[in-house]
Amino acid sequence: MSSSCFCKHSEETPLSVLSPELQEQFSDPNHPANLICELCRLFYDNNWVTGTGGGISIRDVDGANPNLVYIAPSGVQKERIQPWEMFLVELPEEKILRTPNDIPKELTKSYKYKPSACTPLFMSCYTMRDAGACIHTHSQHAVMVTLFLEGKKEFEISHIEQIKALPKLALNENTGKIEKIGSMEYYDKLVIPIIENTPHEEDLTDSLQEAIKNYPGTSAVLVRRHGIYVWGETVWKAKVYNEAIDYLLELAVKMQQSGIPTVKQ
Amino acid sequence: MSSSCFCKHSEETPLSVLSPELQEQFSDPNHPANLICELCRLFYDNNWVTGTGGGISIRDVDGANPNLVYIAPSGVQKERIQPWEMFLVELPEEKILRTPNDIPKELTKSYKYKPSACTPLFMSCYTMRDAGACIHTHSQHAVMVTLFLEGKKEFEISHIEQIKALPKLALNENTGKIEKIGSMEYYDKLVIPIIENTPHEEDLTDSLQEAIKNYPGTSAVLVRRHGIYVWGETVWKAKVYNEAIDYLLELAVKMQQSGIPTVKQ
Amino acid sequence: MSSSCFCKHSEETPLSVLSPELQEQFSDPNHPANLICELCRLFYDNNWVTGTGGGISIRDVDGANPNLVYIAPSGVQKERIQPWEMFLVELPEEKILRTPNDIPKELTKSYKYKPSACTPLFMSCYTMRDAGACIHTHSQHAVMVTLFLEGKKEFEISHIEQIKALPKLALNENTGKIEKIGSMEYYDKLVIPIIENTPHEEDLTDSLQEAIKNYPGTSAVLVRRHGIYVWGETVWKAKVYNEAIDYLLELAVKMQQSGIPTVKQ
Amino acid sequence: MSSSCFCKHSEETPLSVLSPELQEQFSDPNHPANLICELCRLFYDNNWVTGTGGGISIRDVDGANPNLVYIAPSGVQKERIQPWEMFLVELPEEKILRTPNDIPKELTKSYKYKPSACTPLFMSCYTMRDAGACIHTHSQHAVMVTLFLEGKKEFEISHIEQIKALPKLALNENTGKIEKIGSMEYYDKLVIPIIENTPHEEDLTDSLQEAIKNYPGTSAVLVRRHGIYVWGETVWKAKVYNEAIDYLLELAVKMQQSGIPTVKQ
Ligand SMILES: [Zn+2]
Ligand SMILES: [Zn+2]
Ligand SMILES: [Zn+2]
Ligand SMILES: [Zn+2]
Repeated sequence: MSSSCFCKHSEETPLSVLSPELQEQFSDPNHPANLICELCRLFYDNNWVTGTGGGISIRDVDGANPNLVYIAPSGVQKERIQPWEMFLVELPEEKILRTPNDIPKELTKSYKYKPSACTPLFMSCYTMRDAGACIHTHSQHAVMVTLFLEGKKEFEISHIEQIKALPKLALNENTGKIEKIGSMEYYDKLVIPIIENTPHEEDLTDSLQEAIKNYPGTSAVLVRRHGIYVWGETVWKAKVYNEAIDYLLELAVKMQQSGIPTVKQ
Repeated sequence: MSSSCFCKHSEETPLSVLSPELQEQFSDPNHPANLICELCRLFYDNNWVTGTGGGISIRDVDGANPNLVYIAPSGVQKERIQPWEMFLVELPEEKILRTPNDIPKELTKSYKYKPSACTPLFMSCYTMRDAGACIHTHSQHAVMVTLFLEGKKEFEISHIEQIKALPKLALNENTGKIEKIGSMEYYDKLVIPIIENTPHEEDLTDSLQEAIKNYPGTSAVLVRRHGIYVWGETVWKAKVYNEAIDYLLELAVKMQQSGIPTVKQ
Repeated sequence: MSSSCFCKHSEETPLSVLSPELQEQFSDPNHPANLICELCRLFYDNNWVTGTGGGISIRDVDGANPNLVYIAPSGVQKERIQPWEMFLVELPEEKILRTPNDIPKELTKSYKYKPSACTPLFMSCYTMRDAGACIHTHSQHAVMVTLFLEGKKEFEISHIEQIKALPKLALNENTGKIEKIGSMEYYDKLVIPIIENTPHEEDLTDSLQEAIKNYPGTSAVLVRRHGIYVWGETVWKAKVYNEAIDYLLELAVKMQQSGIPTVKQ
Repeated sequence: MSSSCFCKHSEETPLSVLSPELQEQFSDPNHPANLICELCRLFYDNNWVTGTGGGISIRDVDGANPNLVYIAPSGVQKERIQPWEMFLVELPEEKILRTPNDIPKELTKSYKYKPSACTPLFMSCYTMRDAGACIHTHSQHAVMVTLFLEGKKEFEISHIEQIKALPKLALNENTGKIEKIGSMEYYDKLVIPIIENTPHEEDLTDSLQEAIKNYPGTSAVLVRRHGIYVWGETVWKAKVYNEAIDYLLELAVKMQQSGIPTVKQ
């Protein structure tokens, strides 16, 4: 509806200052660095990452080296990040292979980037759950649910169709790993642990890891007065799980406001 | 508002791997396969099919063979489906003519598609009502209304102008079919039956068919704690009916929250 | 965020079937027929005209003949109307100069158009107030306010900054016409009359005209359980007034729900 | 989702009537005049500046002359302003260097522009806080919070993660200026002063300046029954602060409606 602008956007970014290898990567819309940009724009429109909040990390599970992890930088406007602004880390040593601070200044304007404060939390999802991607939002539905449940350690909901979009997880005795064995059923009770917020985001790591260990069936952890962490086998699974969980949290807030219990008796 | 990307989206899909016939079909924006994609993107923006929920099916009522039915696949991100991902079925035997699993792997990346679990419900609308399209959403307004009406079998609303967007249906004694005889009036009471949810979506078929039979005037069936099914004579009629009903459900939730009865005394 | 489509949209409409005069008109983005299309798309995104509800009419106040009035057709999807689908009427006799039924069938697919049922109401705004455009929406905020005020004849609000976006009107004794003499002040009380809905939209004409006469200061009339009519000196003024009023109605609903009086004591 | 239009938008604006210098400026997407247009479109979509409400001003802190200030005009549709419609003022004398009334009439259609009524308030942020940009919105969350706090002089919230997006400010004893010394902490209490609205926006200047002086830690001032002013070191900082504060105001409204105190005991 709004007026068109007269800016020469297409001329604005001299991609040619990048190496041919990076130029090729960033022209592939399915490259993890581009997917992070695309999803951050979507999450921004959902009010999940406004005010530089939230973040996302993708592990290149389909790439030549599935140990490569892309991480959005900290404290920047998430809807405006560009593919060359990612931190690139290799598991399991979490060796930093590339930072946006290595990128020519024509593109970064000498901004001093820091990796997302969520980095150790993202890493916990990769190492403890073999996740392919991890999403962190400041969704108001998530925050409101934790406020309604002040003093409680779990969010619970059952008998809502959308629950079926979430995976059923179980310990594989042979591999010792938590694996997807199917989808949750309509009558299953979805339980998401709630951990208490800490002044520094990285200090959430211990309690997040403890929640992941104590709740082998969960794909998400709520952080009180803060938001939520959601992960999945691939970036698209993580997106779908996050979407389904946020739908359920939004519904739960409405049910709570109308005095309808979220778990059916 | 968001940054432009540097991806070569237009080069990304090698449509040329498709047969010339399919290439031609998929270049027609009014082809049912493209309309399903377009409407799924719209429904996604309305929070009706997030998290892979919901679906849509179109019967090619204006095409050479009006028995052809296009059905979106199950469990995929609805806002991202492509025209070649549809199942194509011929009525009345529901013979499968094409599945996305027949499409060259360059386009489908070897994903193993299943038809929507809603398929038997869509078929019920086609066979019992001669529908031209059927829409299924997980609209939160629909779910909330069924929660407010826990234990009740019908949603009712009257004396709201938007009701006039819905068709007045009646049995044609000559043909034995339910036919549109006009539009609902402002003072008419809109009644939509509510059926109970089942663990497996296909198990809704019997109760959906019973509701369709018992409510000859309805163009929709609510599913408790799940969502809604809406159909119409054509895809555009189904879209309009679904839009008008969702408007009324949204309004009904607000009226309920403020203690205003949805049926005027 | 959604997938791009492969349709040849740009080839789809053979504009060349239109007369050179119409082709030229419809290539001007500021032509009333195009503005109606543009604003209907905007109103659709605001949930004001979903389900074919609502409408808009523009008088060509800046054109060669300011008696020409463009009116959107009835019962069509408002977000999809095209410039050639308008009815063209000349004041004061309301002589029909062109209907979309005169347009080549390549463009209209032989659809039988009817002028908006709001037509006599739009005409009342033109003849009684010299309006340049008139907007009718089914805004849920408008409907909710009339439900809260069941049995009352007026909506009132005061001491909200947004009121200043609305015009202060007064009778010009010389011309006998209602004219804009400035803007409303912050402490002014905005009063919008509420009329009762009728089964047929055209039957609202008498009570709308009575309200316009009895409320010389108003730029809008609410219709209970239905929506609102808003007009202005030009299409852009009407758009701004409608936007400001809807903002105030939305706020009033929230105030009502929280027990805050809309008129400051 | 909506129909494409047939307008020749790109031909519509004869930029060539502008001086080569202005043409070059307005083709730079990062020029303050273009950023104002871009942000106004974003704010419009957020319901912050509908009905011509609100506004924004940017100081060219990165330009050759950081004393240049760009100000959006008053009373126009914010989502449609163009870069040549800005007022250009030079600090500290607030000398007017250019007004849109100097621009060729082909572009402005002889509209008589006035600078935003917020101008003296924007200037207060520049002179008292060395701001790089100042944003004024009519956010309904801001208005609702001031209504809930009728009779109170401050909005307070604590223990919400999003607070960390806001700057911690302190007086630099050496320079005598308020400067950013870091970010707010999770457990910090955010306090935003509330001033009373006045009939004329410029008359808010004294109480706004008093609030800025009395609250050295604040980056924003709420105006009761009106909206909010937010500023920052740069345009992007101001945008982020405004976004984070609006998120907190939205959350506070929900907390208030559910009886949850906004300051944790
Ligand atoms: Zn966070
Ligand atoms: Zn379903
Ligand atoms: Zn109407
Ligand atoms: Zn203002």
